[in-house]
Amino acid sequence: MAAGSEPPEFGDTAITSVDGRQGLLTYRGYRIEDLVRQPQYESVVGLLLDGTLPDTVGAGRLAAELRNRRNLPEEVGRVLAALPPDTPAVDGFRTCVSAMNDLARVFPPTRVEGMSLIARSPSLVAGLYRRSVGGPPIEPDPELDHVANYLWMVMGERAPPPRTRALERYFVLLSDHGISASTFALRIVLSTRSDLASAVSAALGALKGPLHGGAPPEVLDMLDAVGSVSQVESWIDSALERKQRLFGFGHPTYQVEDPRATLLRDFAREVATPARYALAESFERVALDRLAQRYPQSPRFTNVDFYGAVLLEAVGLPRTLFTPTFALARTAGWAAHALEQVAQGRLVRPPERYVGPGPRTWGRGA
Amino acid sequence: MAAGSEPPEFGDTAITSVDGRQGLLTYRGYRIEDLVRQPQYESVVGLLLDGTLPDTVGAGRLAAELRNRRNLPEEVGRVLAALPPDTPAVDGFRTCVSAMNDLARVFPPTRVEGMSLIARSPSLVAGLYRRSVGGPPIEPDPELDHVANYLWMVMGERAPPPRTRALERYFVLLSDHGISASTFALRIVLSTRSDLASAVSAALGALKGPLHGGAPPEVLDMLDAVGSVSQVESWIDSALERKQRLFGFGHPTYQVEDPRATLLRDFAREVATPARYALAESFERVALDRLAQRYPQSPRFTNVDFYGAVLLEAVGLPRTLFTPTFALARTAGWAAHALEQVAQGRLVRPPERYVGPGPRTWGRGA
Repeated sequence: MAAGSEPPEFGDTAITSVDGRQGLLTYRGYRIEDLVRQPQYESVVGLLLDGTLPDTVGAGRLAAELRNRRNLPEEVGRVLAALPPDTPAVDGFRTCVSAMNDLARVFPPTRVEGMSLIARSPSLVAGLYRRSVGGPPIEPDPELDHVANYLWMVMGERAPPPRTRALERYFVLLSDHGISASTFALRIVLSTRSDLASAVSAALGALKGPLHGGAPPEVLDMLDAVGSVSQVESWIDSALERKQRLFGFGHPTYQVEDPRATLLRDFAREVATPARYALAESFERVALDRLAQRYPQSPRFTNVDFYGAVLLEAVGLPRTLFTPTFALARTAGWAAHALEQVAQGRLVRPPERYVGPGPRTWGRGA
Repeated sequence: MAAGSEPPEFGDTAITSVDGRQGLLTYRGYRIEDLVRQPQYESVVGLLLDGTLPDTVGAGRLAAELRNRRNLPEEVGRVLAALPPDTPAVDGFRTCVSAMNDLARVFPPTRVEGMSLIARSPSLVAGLYRRSVGGPPIEPDPELDHVANYLWMVMGERAPPPRTRALERYFVLLSDHGISASTFALRIVLSTRSDLASAVSAALGALKGPLHGGAPPEVLDMLDAVGSVSQVESWIDSALERKQRLFGFGHPTYQVEDPRATLLRDFAREVATPARYALAESFERVALDRLAQRYPQSPRFTNVDFYGAVLLEAVGLPRTLFTPTFALARTAGWAAHALEQVAQGRLVRPPERYVGPGPRTWGRGA
């Protein structure tokens, strides 16, 4: 696992290790099960960006660094205000990051730009949400840490501590996952020596896709459609008959249960209403049973979307913010990968094979 | 070269074939040397998107399709007006494409979204330019074809026919180049089932990098610094001594001269002032000589940036628009690759190898 002495190749990363066979996920060598026990997103930001877990003093400094960068630059506020109010938050997020002129002017991006991105993004998403519901923006509260302040700026009221803690754990668990499609797009953009605003807006575009981060709200739509525990079996059987996709199951990397899903199940149980959790649990049990019957050769497990959606709902976030909230958690990983990509300076070599028509002539008497 | 019967892999493409050993570049099987003889960008758009060269009737229909979609949607105009006037056009281009809500709402993108993107983008770039110089925007002229209308909207006057023809040839030659870094980013974004606004803003972020499309203005800065033919040798020798990069030479794919560079040299000669062309030619001759001496094992050739920059200057475009103009030409290729990616539906598998620290524990008495 340790770095060899050969020069780095594109795709080499020392940030997150994903072992899909054993279901092990580590950030900088630490297992997520350890990191999530004393969740503080700021410390995980430090771990991902700087490579070491901060001590108490370091954690305080990181929290202050992020707190001091929460405000949106004036020009970003103007672009935000120019967007139609019904712009989906995930699209507004991408457009406003692209409009961060200060980040767009620094080549290559440094830790400063990375911290600015992480710190500002919750203000941006909350601002887009407030605009969409016709409410005034809510100022950041310097008394609150990163995740608690995000909830405050969305909801306009102090969330009960268990909800804040649940969301903080979600942020920790979703903060990085190796070179996913969004991170891949980000690293390709940076490999041409472009900037962080360009790279992160590319990542947001990829994360939006339902095969990446765009599926969590569908999990709840599905549970709503089922309605009650007594309907679970018949609903799932009829959905599978209609070849309808069951959201929240299966992952291309994991051959066992995704370790984040295991943790999110417990954290969701702590905050969801008993009825909601019972419905989700019943749905999960029947879905896994039916999927195992249907696909005995390629087992599907509960993925991060399933209880992630139940948790985000219980925390009080509206469904339109599920994908943007995933993206907010991931800004830490994106910033870390951006710095790693810049330090490696490796150009990507895209795969390419021409499979089109052979040489043909035109305009020469043809 | 023909498509086999096996399912397509990510990276399979039937659009452009790049043969770096022989210096052959074909679009849908037609050599660029043939296509550029009767340049009409609209026909090349049809060839790239639809796979066949349109006849006269088809070319007229394509031109009308593009002409009818030139106007910017109202919300894009509002975002454009919200950007600081000194926003670099390449950044404003990315932000405003991201703000194209109609394109952002269609999954998967179709030919309609592709044509809208190609048709609108010149209005966007010209609008950003006019704003940056403090002038009012210039309305599209329905009498003019795609490329001529772009020049009109930037300059506010009719360009002499040789200049329009030179720019049209530039658009044809730059309209696609296989899976470059920008196209790769675009295809990754679409592989998650995201939308065209997301995918093209990602592509624009990658194209901005100086290793991709961001270098052409530097070619002219270099020629300006040299000043005159008599200074070429001493300037280049001293630049190489200072390990300064010579812009406009070398390409990772080509082991012979890039066929686009060969053509652009001729086209630039037709429109550049004799003095400018003489300086460029002298610079090229000395640079190739010195580079061959320095790197006998890995020959460097004149690339598309070198005479591309001389041509764009002669056409009358300001340097700040060189990279955005390259991007405008490439919108055709991006739209074609978007449709191909969507049709293939192949997910990308990012390269990944963990090279960080091994398992370490934390928080368990450590």
